[in-house]
Amino acid sequence: MRVNGTPFRTIWLAEDGARVEVIDQTALPDRFEVQSVATVEQMATAIRTMVVRGAPLIGVAGAYGLALAMREDPSDARLEAAHAALFETRPTAVNLRWALDRVLAALAPASPTERASLAYRLAAEIAEEDVAACAKIGEHGAALLRAEWERRGRPDPFHVLTHCNAGWLATVDWGTALAPVYRLFDEGVPVHVWVDETRPRNQGALTYWELSQHGVPCTFIADNAGGLLMLRGQVHACIVGSDRTTRSGDVCNKIGTYLKALAARDAEIPFYVALPASTLDLTLRDGSSIPIEERAASEVTTRPGVRAANPAFDVTPARLVTKIITERGVCDASEGAIVALHGG
Amino acid sequence: MRVNGTPFRTIWLAEDGARVEVIDQTALPDRFEVQSVATVEQMATAIRTMVVRGAPLIGVAGAYGLALAMREDPSDARLEAAHAALFETRPTAVNLRWALDRVLAALAPASPTERASLAYRLAAEIAEEDVAACAKIGEHGAALLRAEWERRGRPDPFHVLTHCNAGWLATVDWGTALAPVYRLFDEGVPVHVWVDETRPRNQGALTYWELSQHGVPCTFIADNAGGLLMLRGQVHACIVGSDRTTRSGDVCNKIGTYLKALAARDAEIPFYVALPASTLDLTLRDGSSIPIEERAASEVTTRPGVRAANPAFDVTPARLVTKIITERGVCDASEGAIVALHGG
Repeated sequence: MRVNGTPFRTIWLAEDGARVEVIDQTALPDRFEVQSVATVEQMATAIRTMVVRGAPLIGVAGAYGLALAMREDPSDARLEAAHAALFETRPTAVNLRWALDRVLAALAPASPTERASLAYRLAAEIAEEDVAACAKIGEHGAALLRAEWERRGRPDPFHVLTHCNAGWLATVDWGTALAPVYRLFDEGVPVHVWVDETRPRNQGALTYWELSQHGVPCTFIADNAGGLLMLRGQVHACIVGSDRTTRSGDVCNKIGTYLKALAARDAEIPFYVALPASTLDLTLRDGSSIPIEERAASEVTTRPGVRAANPAFDVTPARLVTKIITERGVCDASEGAIVALHGG
Repeated sequence: MRVNGTPFRTIWLAEDGARVEVIDQTALPDRFEVQSVATVEQMATAIRTMVVRGAPLIGVAGAYGLALAMREDPSDARLEAAHAALFETRPTAVNLRWALDRVLAALAPASPTERASLAYRLAAEIAEEDVAACAKIGEHGAALLRAEWERRGRPDPFHVLTHCNAGWLATVDWGTALAPVYRLFDEGVPVHVWVDETRPRNQGALTYWELSQHGVPCTFIADNAGGLLMLRGQVHACIVGSDRTTRSGDVCNKIGTYLKALAARDAEIPFYVALPASTLDLTLRDGSSIPIEERAASEVTTRPGVRAANPAFDVTPARLVTKIITERGVCDASEGAIVALHGG
């Protein structure tokens, strides 16, 4: 997508064909900065400190991290260690593991001399697949949103609420939850987005920034405000991303998602979840077994002596999810529908 | 309640018998400062800028504001103007209006020479009534919380979640939602409080501060976290205050309250609302007609060029409220029960 008019992705190979460059998301929205990542250790730090963030993007970043490691030392030991170090950076998102395992499985039987170039090729492939998947999510999701807009008599504006950042910054390009919004906007539907601040890390500021860069009208709100807006009829649909979705359709996503899903149900507003199929965890029957990352208390408060808890994700039960949107299409949040569309 | 071991109220008459002193709540929890208020204009500013805040406290502050006006000029014109200026400071809380109308009704027929002393006497009376009401709320609410603690087999800790600040800082002393918590703690029940940050103004920092000053164990959390904690079984009861409650039991309170009530219902956790009867608005049949104060966007974000919305309250439908606690006792959130206990 565009930044000040220039097309960007969130991650790309540097001109030297070795280093990886990423948009530093901790500097946004105040400053647009590109960070150059030269080693696997630097990549692990970038993932852990959320220089790169968003489930799809950290999968790609992890894959490039393995490539950086192989460039330095293509031994089995190094491959194992790099895989372990990258996997430990963020425990909740399933497609970090998926991407790392995919690269590991391809590299393990290859000869060490081939590993680096193979890893770079695979990372680029995963990135391209992500872009293609997000574009398809945009297509399927826009049709769904458009149908809701029509059903309600084409309100102007058509109010969509989102939580956290599942835009192009969370992926390589396009985004998951925001891909349908961009597409709808490009098609001329008068969409307006309520952007949840998303405490404690305020990823809503990223969402506001990227929507504004593209020209999509949006309004920033405290996480607390969405319920009132829904009760008042000022929200027509909710759409969020997901870090991991189970076989049964339970959706693990940024902390606070569940509260918005409850409010949407109470106000009879559709609650859509958009995700690449790589974030489906078909091995999990329900969301209660997803490990919930507990992040530093200092993200919540820096007041000395204040005790804080900081769970980073919650699980929205499938019963509150209206539809799941993936690159394969749209389905109900139920085991039957998910498996029918995605196999497994 | 105590601050560093010394008993304080939130508002009191200065030693000169004319000025009014208040704890400056905009400086808390960083600094404990007392502000001296000498004129009605200063009092209106103190209410508007939330130097004093909390529905019960701003009622008392308003009454003292009228006293300050009468001390300067006890004319009818001044009385009307001061009433109007104070009333306009905060539109949502009903007992600001209630306190101002009560003082106005008493002063209007009095001779101008008597008005100032009468107003001071009435303001002090309203303050004492508030302290007594909060103490009774503590008594009734503690019995309710204790029953829930017993019903659950006396968990240690007994986790209570609260939103915003309805503690002694929001009243003259004791608090509304926190009065039962203080009482329970003093009785030896191992209570622990999850303190919602309460964006955008972070009144949770006040709650954390006052609970800690009293020694009550508590943990600060982002507003987004409560739903997950409830789903996980880490909350045994919710208790909040109210700025205005209708005849039918719809509860207007700080923005975000409704989301927690939805989560409590979903997790089958009792959701209690504690309020002085002066915040009941028996003239309103339901909550949809309560004016919702829209505060400055700068409270939500100070980033230049970012459009923000900032509704300060929401309305929790009576169907989500387990019990209402007032100084008169405990009742269901229904017109029949509310009217039976409170008349009207």
